[in-house]
Parts: sequence; structure tokens; C-alpha cells
Amino acid sequence: MEDNKIKVGITQGDINGVGYEVILKTFSDPVMLELCTPIIYGSPKVAAYHRKSLDLPTNFSIVNSAAEAAHNRLSVVNCTDDEVKVEFSKADPEAGKAALGALERAIEEYKEGLIDVIVTAPINKHTIQSETFSFPGHTEYIEERLGNGAKSLMILMKDDFRVALVTGHIPVSQIASTITKELIQEKLAIFNQSLKQDFAIGAPRIAVLSLNPHAGDEGLLGKEEEEIIIPALKEMAAKGILCYGPYPADGFMGSGNFTHFDGVLAMYHDQGLAPFKALAMDEGVNYTAGLPVIRTSPAHGTAYDIAGKGLASEDSFRQAIYVSIDVFRNRLRDKEAHANPLRKQYYEKRDDSDKLKLDSVEEDL
Amino acid sequence: MEDNKIKVGITQGDINGVGYEVILKTFSDPVMLELCTPIIYGSPKVAAYHRKSLDLPTNFSIVNSAAEAAHNRLSVVNCTDDEVKVEFSKADPEAGKAALGALERAIEEYKEGLIDVIVTAPINKHTIQSETFSFPGHTEYIEERLGNGAKSLMILMKDDFRVALVTGHIPVSQIASTITKELIQEKLAIFNQSLKQDFAIGAPRIAVLSLNPHAGDEGLLGKEEEEIIIPALKEMAAKGILCYGPYPADGFMGSGNFTHFDGVLAMYHDQGLAPFKALAMDEGVNYTAGLPVIRTSPAHGTAYDIAGKGLASEDSFRQAIYVSIDVFRNRLRDKEAHANPLRKQYYEKRDDSDKLKLDSVEEDL
Repeated sequence: MEDNKIKVGITQGDINGVGYEVILKTFSDPVMLELCTPIIYGSPKVAAYHRKSLDLPTNFSIVNSAAEAAHNRLSVVNCTDDEVKVEFSKADPEAGKAALGALERAIEEYKEGLIDVIVTAPINKHTIQSETFSFPGHTEYIEERLGNGAKSLMILMKDDFRVALVTGHIPVSQIASTITKELIQEKLAIFNQSLKQDFAIGAPRIAVLSLNPHAGDEGLLGKEEEEIIIPALKEMAAKGILCYGPYPADGFMGSGNFTHFDGVLAMYHDQGLAPFKALAMDEGVNYTAGLPVIRTSPAHGTAYDIAGKGLASEDSFRQAIYVSIDVFRNRLRDKEAHANPLRKQYYEKRDDSDKLKLDSVEEDL
Repeated sequence: MEDNKIKVGITQGDINGVGYEVILKTFSDPVMLELCTPIIYGSPKVAAYHRKSLDLPTNFSIVNSAAEAAHNRLSVVNCTDDEVKVEFSKADPEAGKAALGALERAIEEYKEGLIDVIVTAPINKHTIQSETFSFPGHTEYIEERLGNGAKSLMILMKDDFRVALVTGHIPVSQIASTITKELIQEKLAIFNQSLKQDFAIGAPRIAVLSLNPHAGDEGLLGKEEEEIIIPALKEMAAKGILCYGPYPADGFMGSGNFTHFDGVLAMYHDQGLAPFKALAMDEGVNYTAGLPVIRTSPAHGTAYDIAGKGLASEDSFRQAIYVSIDVFRNRLRDKEAHANPLRKQYYEKRDDSDKLKLDSVEEDL
């Protein structure tokens, strides 16, 4: 039984932020160690520093790789130069280097099959930039390194409230010109597939938000709804994807209408994330859908304003662990369910009785 | 005492929506009639139709103008052709005409001094358009008719949570090019003045949201923060306006940070209103700041999906009445407080003792 526990690789993120605090708080509860085998990619020295500064009870073992990780223990793989110093709340290139080193090592061990899923603690997107890391964030980097050419979709979620974005980290001035029918359809297809395979929803219902205020008010406030979004939805609906809208974001979020859908596709960053975080910040999880690898992270950032103070809530990080485990299990079940499909049954078209002929099979199976 | 009650002019809005339902529900509570003297600009026939269909207990008197309105009664001024028919949820040009007629009459009687404040029930922005009404909504129309050249600012509010917008009913493609330093400063000045005069806040603190995701991430996701917003705030701060930011909208709304400010200035419609409504839809009030006239409305629209079903909540409309009364009183107090300012006291600059000389006055008073 123990061998079946899911191995969760955790990257340390920015050592001057709240990353270690939320990791150590999460695994201070022994029940968490019954759920999974956690391996931190980081630094035993830094972990011990945070443990002591914040007076946390969590114990951990030092291992050389995830292959050595013991069950019912929190393990740490050392990926960081021992000279690195923690300075709470400081944006430090050395800390950026440490974050990247941990991420690289986790990706390496994931490729070797030593961990099952990856949960990333928050990075500082500025200090991590280097010759090998030139991306807006984790999502794009992991897509590049572990995507095998697949496109990712960022989903922010809390329980059944899941928000994904058509456009992400771009300036507001570029939103309208970036929105195309093809892009909306690409994101809808990934979202739909993820809701089925990763969240075990048989026939997911997806709400799509409008680009413009009041859904463009019949063209008075913009034409993208009529010219791009509605045609995109019609074509996808014809392919069997249950997509609805476009809905004006304010009324949709205000009316609680989102509770009737399995997913909400927003057109841009603040439109989706401002109401999502207003409603669900504390336990929000960021899930990178669409890739072969399963990667989650908490919805918050490095939180320099409260780093080292013991004030950070671990709820979001704990939920990120839960989601990674749930998705891993759902994918396994999905794979098993589709491993041995029933043979297609054959209707004899020329037989007016429309009788099911179980003795014949389609030739082109 | 009774003569001092504030006269609240209420426009019927779209007769096929939930307007009459929320008005009649609000005044089914007799306490509301002790707070103010309400006058509906609309149609006794239509009011009676809604009253009967929805089985509401609210009584009202028919009057020729607000001048005749009795205390402790809900009065209705007939402004509508008796032939008009209610068809719940129908977008009908006749209903649009009735909405406009009521609005015109309220504006007329406001100009005559017969009512103190205006509370508008929701209109259908399409059916109300005509030769005399060619505006995105109430706000712009009232600014034109009763603004005396002043610029309005739309504030969505619930208790101390107040959100105003730099840009409003424009397509997303035009947001970035519409945002200028001057526009931000104009809106900040109106907001600041309104918070002082209308909400009796001595030194209001205003948070300003960023245009781009992550506040532009130091230029990676847009330059407007560095080139427009931050310089605009610096100049206003130098003038003594307590403005802060720019804050990324998602984190700001998610962290509850907005509770530390008296007002939040968002850059565009969905950025401000999607999180506002997510958090405060039910009791949200729309207040048109910046004009000599005091006008409020509920945060919801005609709600055709539930019109005539008795399901509409009157909370938002009741709050709109409360806010109109509060602002009226605050403005009176503000006026009184500034009516007889103390004479400036005079320090003799050449007197080293810096002694206050109460016997001399500045010449240029």
C-alpha cells in the first residue's frame, strides 16, 4: 500500500518569501504524510533556518534524490549552494538562482520518473530570470520544459469554481488584438479536456465571459462579441463542447451564476482573477492544465510583506497538494476507463428494423 | 419636523423589469416612510398592475406633482400614457418611452425644487434610446441635463467599500489609449471631493488600481504604470490628495486590502465592477458623484430573467434610498460647517516671539 503513495515533488521557490513557511506548516500535520510522500527540492540548511525562525515543529530528512525518500517523512533534496543566505523580503538574485536550481532538479527527477506531480512554491519573477530562465513565470517555463509541444492553460480553482484565461500576462493594450476565434477555441478545447480527464466531469459545462463591458451591448461597446466570440462558441458547441455565453463579467460574478458551471473562461487576466481572488483567495489553487505533467501552486505569491513573520496561511498550499493528488488519481482512473474500450456495436443500416447486430463489427476499427 | 423630511423622487425605469417590484417591496415597510417622503414618477395604473400581479401590500396615493405629496405616504405622479401595457421581460419601445417620460418629469420637478434627490429604477438601455435620449445610460444623461457643466463619476458602493472608474462604457480595445494622466487626475479629484463632502470623510484615502496585470511588472507587462499612472499619483499626492498605488487588481481585491481605503479607483469597467459585484452585489448602490444633483440607483439592472416572478430582492434599491438620504444630509452639514468660516488668524512675521496677534486681521480677507 505504502508504495502506492503519490510522490509529490515540491520546489522551494523564493527562499526570502513565505514558501518554506507554508510548506512546513502544511506538513506539520502528520495526516498529510499519510496522503502522499512529499519531497522538497531546496536546501536543508534554508529549511532549518525557516523552521527555527518561525518556531515550527515540522521535521524532515535529508536525501540525495526522491528515490531515497522514505514514506511518512518529509524529505529534502539539497539543490542549493550552502553559502546562500536567507534575508526575509529581499529580492535577491542569489535567491532567484536557488529557486531556479530547485526547479531544474525537480524537472530532472520528474523526467526520471522519481516523482509523480510537481507543486511549486512562489518565485520572485524578477530575480529568477537568467540565461536559462526567460519566461513570465513557472507556467510558461514548465510548458517549455515538460510540455512535449502541448499548450498549457492556467486554471485558478477553489473546489468547483474554476477560472481559466484566454490571454494571460500581456498588457491591457494588447488584449483585444490578441483575442482570436482560434485562440478561444484552443483554450476551450484544453479546458474541456482537462475538466473531463483531470476533474472527472463527464460532460463539463463551460461559461465564457465577454471581452467588452455588458457583452458589447449589441455592438455599442465593441464588436468582438459578435465577430469573434459568438462564432467561436457556435462552432465549438457544434462539436459537442457545452460552452455558453458570452456573459458580462460583472453580472456573472455578482449573481453567483458561476456556480452553475464547471468552468469559467475569462478573456484576460484581471477580468478572471480579480473576482476569483475576491471570492476565493485563501484556498485558491493554480493548476497548469493541458500538459502531460501535473503541476499546481498556491494562488498567492512570495508575500514579501509578511515573510518571516509567521503570518502566512498554508491553506492555499495545502489545497495545491490536494489538487495535485486528485488530478493524478483522476487521470489514472480516466486511463483505466479508456484502456479497454468496448468494441463499437454495429447497426445494419439497410435493415429497416434497426436491430442491433451484436455478431458483426465495423471493419475499420 | 415632518416638513423637513427629504423628498425622494423615484423614476419608474423599465415597466417590464423588476423596478416596480423593488420599489413597492421597499415601501411595504412603514418605517421607510418615516425616513423620507417618496414620490414615484411613473404610472398609477402600472404600479397597481405590479402590486396585484406580485401580491404586494404597498399602498400609494396619486398626486399631480411632488408638491402635493403627503407625508407618510408613497405618492405616484402620473407621467405615462394609460394605454401602455406591462409585458414582463419584454424589451418594448413603449416601455422605453414610459421610462424616459418619467425621468424627464423627475428632472423637471427637481429643477423646480419639488424633490431633493433622485433615485432611478433600472432602464433598458436599448428601448429608451430616442431623439432626446442618446446616451449609454442614466449617468451620462443626468450629467448632461443637471450637471451644469460638471463631470460625473460613477461610484459603486456598499457601506465603506466604494469603487469608482477612470473609464466606463467603452470597448476594451480603447481602454489603454483613453487612460491619460489628466483623466486619472480629474477622476481622483472628483472622488476625493465626493468622499469629503458626500460621505463626511475628513481625509479620504484612495487606492488606485494598475492598468496592467501585476501593475505592469516593472514594464514587462505594459508601460502605462510607469509613464502615466505613477506620475499622475505623485502630482496629486503633492497636492495633498491621499492616493496610493497602483495596486494589481487581483491581489488587491483578494487580500482584503480594499478595507483599508475609503475609495478604490479602478482603471476600467470589469476590473472594478466584477470584483465589486462578486463581493457586494446584493446591497450594492450606484452613486453618481460630482454633480450638484444627488442621484443613486440599485446596482442591478432590469433583471428580465426574474421579472414578474416576485423573486427580486429589494435590498439594493433600499440601500440606494438610504445612500441618497445620507449624502443629502452630509452635504447639508458640510455646507453648514463651511458657511461661516473662522477668520484667518494673523501671525506677525517680524515678531520673533511668533506670538498670535488676535487684534489684527489679514487685509485681503
